[in-house]
Amino acid sequence: MPVPELPERLLLGPGPSNVSAAVREALARPLIGHLDPAFLALLDDLQQMLARVFRAPPGSLALPISGTGSAGMEACLVNLLEPGETLLVGVNGVFGERMSAIGERCGARVRRVEAEMGEIVPPERLIAEIEASRPAVVALVHAETSTGVAQPVEAVAAAARASGALSVLDCVTSLSGMDVRVGDWQADAAYSGTQKCLACPPGLSPLVFGPRALERLERRQKPVQSWYLDLSLIGRYFGEKRVYHHTAPISMLYALHAALARVFDEGLEARFRRHREAHERLVAGLEPLGFRMLVSAPHRLPMLNSVLPPFADEAEKRGRLLAEHGIEVGGGLGKLAGRIWRIGLMGENARPEAVDRLLVALRSLV
Amino acid sequence: MPVPELPERLLLGPGPSNVSAAVREALARPLIGHLDPAFLALLDDLQQMLARVFRAPPGSLALPISGTGSAGMEACLVNLLEPGETLLVGVNGVFGERMSAIGERCGARVRRVEAEMGEIVPPERLIAEIEASRPAVVALVHAETSTGVAQPVEAVAAAARASGALSVLDCVTSLSGMDVRVGDWQADAAYSGTQKCLACPPGLSPLVFGPRALERLERRQKPVQSWYLDLSLIGRYFGEKRVYHHTAPISMLYALHAALARVFDEGLEARFRRHREAHERLVAGLEPLGFRMLVSAPHRLPMLNSVLPPFADEAEKRGRLLAEHGIEVGGGLGKLAGRIWRIGLMGENARPEAVDRLLVALRSLV
Repeated sequence: MPVPELPERLLLGPGPSNVSAAVREALARPLIGHLDPAFLALLDDLQQMLARVFRAPPGSLALPISGTGSAGMEACLVNLLEPGETLLVGVNGVFGERMSAIGERCGARVRRVEAEMGEIVPPERLIAEIEASRPAVVALVHAETSTGVAQPVEAVAAAARASGALSVLDCVTSLSGMDVRVGDWQADAAYSGTQKCLACPPGLSPLVFGPRALERLERRQKPVQSWYLDLSLIGRYFGEKRVYHHTAPISMLYALHAALARVFDEGLEARFRRHREAHERLVAGLEPLGFRMLVSAPHRLPMLNSVLPPFADEAEKRGRLLAEHGIEVGGGLGKLAGRIWRIGLMGENARPEAVDRLLVALRSLV
Repeated sequence: MPVPELPERLLLGPGPSNVSAAVREALARPLIGHLDPAFLALLDDLQQMLARVFRAPPGSLALPISGTGSAGMEACLVNLLEPGETLLVGVNGVFGERMSAIGERCGARVRRVEAEMGEIVPPERLIAEIEASRPAVVALVHAETSTGVAQPVEAVAAAARASGALSVLDCVTSLSGMDVRVGDWQADAAYSGTQKCLACPPGLSPLVFGPRALERLERRQKPVQSWYLDLSLIGRYFGEKRVYHHTAPISMLYALHAALARVFDEGLEARFRRHREAHERLVAGLEPLGFRMLVSAPHRLPMLNSVLPPFADEAEKRGRLLAEHGIEVGGGLGKLAGRIWRIGLMGENARPEAVDRLLVALRSLV
């Protein structure tokens, strides 16, 4: 069976984003073993870069989960929750729903503070609910990929800490594209995905557990329900002893190392600025074409833009954008399916050239 | 941070094995989206090849789990077991222990039929225990990677079916290196890893659920405890509707497609023969050097050879083999740590050149 021809695409959906030649070259390097001293040295570098990109507090464990962003979400929740404990989730989109569903499967009592898709979950309501229900864990979606909303998390994480709860942040879409400060914000755990602003293929979930999360893990009464995602076992491979747990996904780890190296070559602040500027250029170009932004200006994610298109046949237009212009944008999820487009400007694609190419194509469609 | 220099290695341990240039080129291809029609066409091919490599019965669901082989193991058990049900496991090594541990975490009542590491679990004892304990699921390690034992599974799977139980096979190390016949053997589910005889990097777990396993999944009382590994959700992306569950690991799926295409270009029978012949050449070359085989001849895996080295300082000798000759072999796991070497001849490495290069290096060490 021959390798099929694949078209060239400009990936301006909710991820994956395009990856650089450097990352692709890293992927293609010959394999070495997952216990080879040379590989373990690469992992040391990689883990240090992960801790830096999350701005994790001292004493954190930073590692890549061998699965996609949803595996990182599940890893955080199964490790931090025990059956019967209370999980408080802010739900204003598909990924808050997913956290809530995973919490249920952990046997947690799930309390939800909800908001409409496209709006933030008001911090004051979350803080009031922390006081009312005294949860063990508070979970927030920092960057809701289904809507493009940037959730304010700092005051909520601080309130969680003050009440003795742990907080978990979904940074799948935000990490390395906007400020993420796990330590300063007093958050306890966070996870991301590789295929968004990190500009690496999908398949790994960068994760960080701060000292309080690690302590909670040690004090568990029952084993973690997932063996594959049990951080007390995984942490022995990603800790000093490098004890085998499962075979590390070597090639993807090469790629993540190369992608993180590019992040720090550029510098986090410069990278955040690049994402912000691409976003501003997009918004300025879309409004004259009749697109409206779903999210109010103060709460927009720069790397994921939810827009209401000025035509009813959105799926057909998206299909033409892909087939005629080689540009992928995302459709809506859940209640927003058929109503919005999700335009990603992530990683390598957060550049004026990508924005302009999209705008030229859109002018030919509307 | 620069990309570190990586040494060239001949990977003759328990996996990963070396991958071909074709697979590395596939990994490095530009990304397209996980819902792109061109990508979905590639997935169609890939899933058909997976069903063929497992020789799955008609009506099976074959797909790659987005995690390593252990994720495939966990996927099988969490989907097929409900709390309080009985899991019967044959335990004669680390991977039978792992199945047993995962069964416990599913809330199953775990019954074990044990044998020494290096021996098979006698089928008649397994069959007697099926009759005695009437398990819901019987789990067997077809190829025990910690010992190099090939477990006879056919009579046990048939007895499981006759009793109404489902059977699950760990084919992580055996798939595409020796006969695996899920359909003919009346097994209901099986999983593998990509980094062994398939000669693809680690990171995916090929998995197959036969019709009876799919039916059991539909009749569950409680949701699967893992959201990430819930095949009733994953199966909607890998089924006709292609509904988003999690972002598929695009680059690794390119690689697996290319690796499977190579398997079928060669042909399964030719590939099995190549593995068998490499094994025979290795055994014939090792015995004069004073190495003894751990496993008796009828029960040896061709692709994973457990040997007792003729020296006490095995770890130092393995280190020299790696540092001076660029050859990786594996040490023992569990009770066999420090006592055996595990020599893999998997995928691209099941060739006389690889065997001879190892034998030359060993002659300089012993």
